[in-house]
Amino acid sequence: MAKALPKRSENYSEWYNEIVKRADLAENSAVRGCMVIKPYGFAIWEKMQRALDDMFKATGHQNAYFPLFVPKSFLEKEEEHAEGFAKECAVVTHYRLKSDGEGGLMVDPNAKLEEELIIRPTSETVIWNAYKGWIQSWRDLPLLINQWCNVVRWEMRTRIFLRTAEFLWQEGHTAHATEQEAVDETHQMLGVYAEFAEGWMAMPVVQGVKTPAERFAGAVDTFCIEALMQDGKALQSGTSHFLGQNFSKSFDVKFVGKDNQLEFPWATSWGVSTRLMGALIMAHSDDNGLVLPPKLAPIQVVIVPIHKTPEDLAKISETIAPLLGQLKAKGISVKYDDSDNQRSGWKFAEYELRGVPVRLGIGMRDVENGAIELARRDTLSKESRPINFELPEGFVVGIKVLLDEIQENLYDRAMKFREENTFLIDTWDEFKEQIEKGGFIMAHWDGTAETEAAIKNETKATIRCIPLLSAEMAGKCVYSGNDSPKRVLFARAY
Amino acid sequence: MAKALPKRSENYSEWYNEIVKRADLAENSAVRGCMVIKPYGFAIWEKMQRALDDMFKATGHQNAYFPLFVPKSFLEKEEEHAEGFAKECAVVTHYRLKSDGEGGLMVDPNAKLEEELIIRPTSETVIWNAYKGWIQSWRDLPLLINQWCNVVRWEMRTRIFLRTAEFLWQEGHTAHATEQEAVDETHQMLGVYAEFAEGWMAMPVVQGVKTPAERFAGAVDTFCIEALMQDGKALQSGTSHFLGQNFSKSFDVKFVGKDNQLEFPWATSWGVSTRLMGALIMAHSDDNGLVLPPKLAPIQVVIVPIHKTPEDLAKISETIAPLLGQLKAKGISVKYDDSDNQRSGWKFAEYELRGVPVRLGIGMRDVENGAIELARRDTLSKESRPINFELPEGFVVGIKVLLDEIQENLYDRAMKFREENTFLIDTWDEFKEQIEKGGFIMAHWDGTAETEAAIKNETKATIRCIPLLSAEMAGKCVYSGNDSPKRVLFARAY
Repeated sequence: MAKALPKRSENYSEWYNEIVKRADLAENSAVRGCMVIKPYGFAIWEKMQRALDDMFKATGHQNAYFPLFVPKSFLEKEEEHAEGFAKECAVVTHYRLKSDGEGGLMVDPNAKLEEELIIRPTSETVIWNAYKGWIQSWRDLPLLINQWCNVVRWEMRTRIFLRTAEFLWQEGHTAHATEQEAVDETHQMLGVYAEFAEGWMAMPVVQGVKTPAERFAGAVDTFCIEALMQDGKALQSGTSHFLGQNFSKSFDVKFVGKDNQLEFPWATSWGVSTRLMGALIMAHSDDNGLVLPPKLAPIQVVIVPIHKTPEDLAKISETIAPLLGQLKAKGISVKYDDSDNQRSGWKFAEYELRGVPVRLGIGMRDVENGAIELARRDTLSKESRPINFELPEGFVVGIKVLLDEIQENLYDRAMKFREENTFLIDTWDEFKEQIEKGGFIMAHWDGTAETEAAIKNETKATIRCIPLLSAEMAGKCVYSGNDSPKRVLFARAY
Repeated sequence: MAKALPKRSENYSEWYNEIVKRADLAENSAVRGCMVIKPYGFAIWEKMQRALDDMFKATGHQNAYFPLFVPKSFLEKEEEHAEGFAKECAVVTHYRLKSDGEGGLMVDPNAKLEEELIIRPTSETVIWNAYKGWIQSWRDLPLLINQWCNVVRWEMRTRIFLRTAEFLWQEGHTAHATEQEAVDETHQMLGVYAEFAEGWMAMPVVQGVKTPAERFAGAVDTFCIEALMQDGKALQSGTSHFLGQNFSKSFDVKFVGKDNQLEFPWATSWGVSTRLMGALIMAHSDDNGLVLPPKLAPIQVVIVPIHKTPEDLAKISETIAPLLGQLKAKGISVKYDDSDNQRSGWKFAEYELRGVPVRLGIGMRDVENGAIELARRDTLSKESRPINFELPEGFVVGIKVLLDEIQENLYDRAMKFREENTFLIDTWDEFKEQIEKGGFIMAHWDGTAETEAAIKNETKATIRCIPLLSAEMAGKCVYSGNDSPKRVLFARAY
């Protein structure tokens, strides 16, 4: 028997690492800070990709692909952007290796690049350089492009899925004729992210705008969705940036407007990454392992036969054949695990660890009684359910309803947790006390970078966002006592 | 009016470049040798990906993701592999830029990596390093993994889609308990590629095995599919490698067999890339532009209204609404182009250039007569077809049949072209004469590397493969006159 998982309450960080490992989601690679996403983890990511991609296309976006390499001179063009990313760049300086004369390889000093190439940390510069050739007239706008790709940011402290040197993401890059259209796009995509987080990941999020200190390097405004993890820390799960005309000006992209005047287009960019995998794990999982919302589960229903002899197994397999067929016909992703290399008890534990939403166990007595044992991963409850094995349609409809119910239950549970862990705080002492316990703190802030920095410095709490939906109720800054127009969201964050 | 395309017969290379550009498929980026795949080109690639991915999954493979970076020491482990790829590697040597004091950025000399990282040219080394942790027992085998990703090979002479410094591809990497299983897998995936090329791309291919000189660096055997382009040159369109135990030994991966003995697993790898986009273009397109097989066309049917007034347009739009709905309901990808920024004649030319398989034109007289003008992209033929606009079901079924017919016609046409341009050659004079004219040459070869090199040297023709299906009929080598067991396939190649 494998060692039990660490408990969330005892060692949250170790609990997270062990779930990633034991549920076979990913592992650290031999390359510092880079991860290998294993098939089971990647299957979840593929489901996320498919759902997001469909939403992007439904809102008029098209996919494209831009180069991995950013010439150093591109990065230099937008000053804030350069400053924001220069410190964590993987830099390609040579294009050839040669024999070192001792059976190994060495960099060939004669193959030095004239201009160094940066591995893209994000693609605004490469893409706006291309847009210069694509945008001439208002007829070319809006330009609504997305790409799925890998990016590299040379982080010093990495954490699997949450902060890795290389990660996978999508980045949308749009160009618009007017400021208002670009602002609308920024909000639309923030809404798409919120809908995905809540509707697919079953993870409630707060939509808001970042303070200038937390803004994306090169943006006029950065919007984000913030989720609360079970340890009381916030996780930024997606960002949507209004870039103004910063990049069109830096790359000298102009278009002839309807009025025949040359203008700079307005831009947005927006992205979510494999970081969402970390969010998904931490939002729902428990001390027994991963818990997956049915809509993103690679296996939604697993059926495990409980048998002693090959004859019993044959009988069980034959009995559930119609059930298997009907589950598949209803679009339910089902696995029948009749492998003979492990006992059913081991399998039960394994699928629990992997977060399969519904487990069906069936033994010889069940075959005789027309029953099946159904276990829910979210509540860990078990019950015996009647089933007509020859005509299992009613049972299958029940499973479909149950999957929806589990999806909703996970959302409700996460929402309840967030509500119980969101605090309206008005005094600095209470603030300091609560931040140690974790959770979202809604507090007044005087709007200055100095106060924001002081609070971060004293408590490690950052302003996660100024929520779009919080009420405009004036008050006094929890730190300085100065005037504040509304509460903002503070938390410690990943 | 835009300038006409160059003709294939006059300047094939320029014709290719212009199609890539004018059909809006891709463009060269500012980064040497790298391309930008534009939305229309990427939509074709996405269709290819989806079809291939479904075939990989249907044959039991799972997707995963491995790091972009290959430590230099990994590359050194398999000698032939290292030798094959060292000369064209992008090398990351630093992880930070800093201000150069003059408003620009420079590589920070204090941020030099201890060990250089290579951008993956292919992932055998990184993946087999990971497999060391994944494979312990025969129960872990076979391991059937694929990844979709970008790779970099620093080619000196690049050509959009055909040979670029960065390209997109998939690479399958499998591990097996026995040699036979690995050999079977190699053949199976070659078969999948051939099925995709012929069934989806409508492009006939020759399946064969490479000579030792043309083998993948590190493989025991390399199998390939070879297609004939319209200029008489061959294009290698996919490869499937039997790697023996080369990588399991280099990375010290062992498993406990059923007999409790430690053994090295047997490996395969196989890949196709965005190079297929180049093959697709060159296999079917004509002097009017791109020609796409319906199964890979992002737009299968375009409907263009021909009108003078907004009232006419409104009437036409209303009339074809049921047709649009039914085409979509039948799973046909249809676009109704009622944009007012171009005339219908311009639109006709544009969709022809973009290779849309079926174009429907409809004017006011058509509305009155219950007719529609149908143009086929493959044959460039036009006809007026009757349609009951209120109940267009019969017409829609006809379109579905027509799309299949076009798919088949493209395949048949390409097959006919290949048959007409495949030559059985038995004398060296004829060989030299034919190779200048192009085409596939089936000739006898004595099996030596010397003869192969001499032929390549004198004619630029390479042995594309030893076809799996050619008859075992002995003869005399076309160059040396020595004995040969069967003919092999020669051609000049991309």
